[in-house]
Amino acid sequence: MTSHGQAAWELLLPAAAAPARRRGRALQEALRDAVRSGRLAPGTRLPSSRALAADLGVSRGLVTEAYEQLTAEGYLRSDRGAGTWVGEAARGRPGGPPARGGVGIPAPGRGTGTPGGSAPGTRAWAADARGTGDGTHARGGAGPHAAGAGAPRVRVDFRPGTPDLSLFPRSAWSAAQRAVLARLPHPSLGYPDPRGLPELREALAALLTRRRGVVADPERLVVCSGVAQASTLLGFVLRARGHGAIGVEDPGSPEHGRLFSSTGLDTLWLPLDGEGLRPEPLAASGVRAVVVTPSHQFPSGISWSAERRAALLAWARAVDGHVLEDDYDGDFRYDRAPVGALQGLDPERVVYAGSVSKSLAPGLRLGWMLVPGELLAEVVERKRTMDLGNPVLDQAVLAEFVTRGAYDRQLRRCQRAYRERRDGLLAALAEHLPGTEVSGIAAGLHVIARVPGRYGPTERFLARAAAAGVVLRPLEEYGTARPGDGDVRLVIGYAHLAPSVVAAGIRAVAAAVGRG
Amino acid sequence: MTSHGQAAWELLLPAAAAPARRRGRALQEALRDAVRSGRLAPGTRLPSSRALAADLGVSRGLVTEAYEQLTAEGYLRSDRGAGTWVGEAARGRPGGPPARGGVGIPAPGRGTGTPGGSAPGTRAWAADARGTGDGTHARGGAGPHAAGAGAPRVRVDFRPGTPDLSLFPRSAWSAAQRAVLARLPHPSLGYPDPRGLPELREALAALLTRRRGVVADPERLVVCSGVAQASTLLGFVLRARGHGAIGVEDPGSPEHGRLFSSTGLDTLWLPLDGEGLRPEPLAASGVRAVVVTPSHQFPSGISWSAERRAALLAWARAVDGHVLEDDYDGDFRYDRAPVGALQGLDPERVVYAGSVSKSLAPGLRLGWMLVPGELLAEVVERKRTMDLGNPVLDQAVLAEFVTRGAYDRQLRRCQRAYRERRDGLLAALAEHLPGTEVSGIAAGLHVIARVPGRYGPTERFLARAAAAGVVLRPLEEYGTARPGDGDVRLVIGYAHLAPSVVAAGIRAVAAAVGRG
Repeated sequence: MTSHGQAAWELLLPAAAAPARRRGRALQEALRDAVRSGRLAPGTRLPSSRALAADLGVSRGLVTEAYEQLTAEGYLRSDRGAGTWVGEAARGRPGGPPARGGVGIPAPGRGTGTPGGSAPGTRAWAADARGTGDGTHARGGAGPHAAGAGAPRVRVDFRPGTPDLSLFPRSAWSAAQRAVLARLPHPSLGYPDPRGLPELREALAALLTRRRGVVADPERLVVCSGVAQASTLLGFVLRARGHGAIGVEDPGSPEHGRLFSSTGLDTLWLPLDGEGLRPEPLAASGVRAVVVTPSHQFPSGISWSAERRAALLAWARAVDGHVLEDDYDGDFRYDRAPVGALQGLDPERVVYAGSVSKSLAPGLRLGWMLVPGELLAEVVERKRTMDLGNPVLDQAVLAEFVTRGAYDRQLRRCQRAYRERRDGLLAALAEHLPGTEVSGIAAGLHVIARVPGRYGPTERFLARAAAAGVVLRPLEEYGTARPGDGDVRLVIGYAHLAPSVVAAGIRAVAAAVGRG
Repeated sequence: MTSHGQAAWELLLPAAAAPARRRGRALQEALRDAVRSGRLAPGTRLPSSRALAADLGVSRGLVTEAYEQLTAEGYLRSDRGAGTWVGEAARGRPGGPPARGGVGIPAPGRGTGTPGGSAPGTRAWAADARGTGDGTHARGGAGPHAAGAGAPRVRVDFRPGTPDLSLFPRSAWSAAQRAVLARLPHPSLGYPDPRGLPELREALAALLTRRRGVVADPERLVVCSGVAQASTLLGFVLRARGHGAIGVEDPGSPEHGRLFSSTGLDTLWLPLDGEGLRPEPLAASGVRAVVVTPSHQFPSGISWSAERRAALLAWARAVDGHVLEDDYDGDFRYDRAPVGALQGLDPERVVYAGSVSKSLAPGLRLGWMLVPGELLAEVVERKRTMDLGNPVLDQAVLAEFVTRGAYDRQLRRCQRAYRERRDGLLAALAEHLPGTEVSGIAAGLHVIARVPGRYGPTERFLARAAAAGVVLRPLEEYGTARPGDGDVRLVIGYAHLAPSVVAAGIRAVAAAVGRG
């Protein structure tokens, strides 16, 4: 055992005593909690995986896995060959009740710094907040919250954003509805708590803590109509506090721009590289708020590195700012356990938002936010004036669903289906469009495919695919980058398509574009 | 028959041939349509009721009733002894498809007149948009959209705003839920049309046309989270068009002020008299938008006179303005058929809003707006950025419910229950607080009671009632009027209380306040 506090490792012992199939997860949770609570201080060196495994009486693999997971999430730092330390990034509540106004947390209404024009490396976004302006469009464009619908001639629509709606668990949902209507007390049918039904906030807090590694206090959880509404709610609050703009990832979802624009905020594209948001342009931008997708960046598909997670939080603290974490598909990772949410590292700086839109159905319009204490009252009052709170019956049904374990089953079911479809897409690309590179982690509901230039150029590629009845979206629609290397970069959504349709669609594209 | 166009009366013949039990309604609808379509032009003199009854072969009583109803709604004008004419107020679509940009209808974004300070007879409203500021309040105050909740010692809570939640038709709703989940096509579970589910918009348009006399084009119906969200949506649209303030009825619901304040609009109290909004202060106020409750004014309980309805619409046309009609309890009238909605008189000037909050449950957060053509695109885009649209399952269930006739049954059931409670309240007031006057029409879920000054003053009256466990709201909380005559004016909500509880509550108050 090392000299860095025998007591600290003892708190891992209960986890080590967990049943074998839950032991790995329990170990990770205990380690994460120890870092977050400060019982393992930043800079503390961890024992070698071999030593800790021996102390705890668990396999060394479990410890290695826990170290890797928490390093990816930013709780730990590792140097090849030099060992593992507790990182600086995590700054949760220091044990006990949630802090509501500690050091470095501004009083409401204090900040008024409105960023001016574009800083180097950023680009102001002329968002068209009006959409098509005809008042009839159901979808506001591509992105994690947008949908893919078929125009008349379309045979295969690869636009990203929609899950497989046929996976919606109709009979289980129906059973939960019956149960809810049989037991819900009359007063629950009255004007709701704008934060949401207490039983759902309890159930979601437990679920998100377990699945996403967040710090989830039910008192700070606000049920909302999905990540879109979470964005609008936060946008209005920031605007009222004097923010003039918010940063968005480039590439990223144009929908974020439209949503924030509706609250009076400008959006600034902030460039991304293979690890996450680049720190210098972010610092130079003048914004004090950003929206990010660190678990599975949309659309690039990367998972942010631990360094960039830490750097983002350091920036937020330095500018007295806030981060909106859009965890739009954080539940779907196919090669390993999903990387825990950024929010767990600093729940006072990060607003975490998620929904059932990818796991159940977008039509439920049901999501959640975890809100830092100092923003909570303003977000809740916004939610109240916006709609008085979410409808109660769906909330009660989801609570029932989560509590029964049916939600976990649904996630496993989707995970299996989407993994199979992703594998099928990759195989089809390899077979029919050889040379195509797929980037990003094995996760989510879409991939980025870089098709060799000989099939291009992009415009002709897309036109020919469309003529063959296949709708594809180019990466250029999601940001400002124009590599100019001639390759065709596509954002391909596959989750809503049966494997045979995925394969047929790619085959049709290949036939249409020929060999270039 | 008169000389005023034989042809015009012929269009009433099909109505006259309707089955006896529907004949009266059919006659009224046919007459209303004839006025609205312009087939009966403003100024046209109608035949005497005796003559028309003879021509149509219906009883004279039916014709008299139709004349009275349409006169109350503002379609017709009557002078005692001098006959009945078609009024000037109605200006609907002139036959054919809805007008989307005709004469006198401004282009979007044209108006920028921000009203300055308070005009004579109005008072600027310092709304506290933050509520209690603790982020935990489920209710933002009294009013048609507020709720009554019990504090620990409360035995009887007469605060208005909540229906009887035990009347929610659980098994019928549950059956409709099952039916919906069995038949809804998969794509309906995707991202919704922000205007709402087409089948619900169709069903509501038919329902509202029939029950409330509105002009309801499904293409202009927007499903929303209730009248509260309708207010916020319209408020944001008006603010973006340059409005600085909106007028509200005095007395009225303080909640309107809080909602509009959240959109950046000031609210101005505009004085009411026994007939509706007084025209002079309205004209002098400088606002170009007002929110009104003409069918059953909240809280005074009057129904606006036909003259004032016409005057309001004339004002709206003159200032190129808009009217939000909050039809919060328009379905509940106990002495006669409800007066048709104002919107029917001019669907290009009136935004009509209603919900199921009083008829089914506030917790459903389900309502609707009928939106003038020139505001439609902006309202829908606001709805989209606010939440992408209402949840689809409840929408489908309500559509099923309306189409099956279950919604009409529910309204009849509530009507019976609330009428009985109102009668019980009036009897209890007469018995235990003799001399108390109840004003307003026999409608809705609350009454205004004027208790003789010998039981007062108001503050002591309320304190003694509260000490006896009875919560009552004084009229003063709903506006600026302070009559100073010593009488105690109360807004008493009774719909959510069993008749025995209503009686026991009034008895307890009487015992607590003594004889003054």
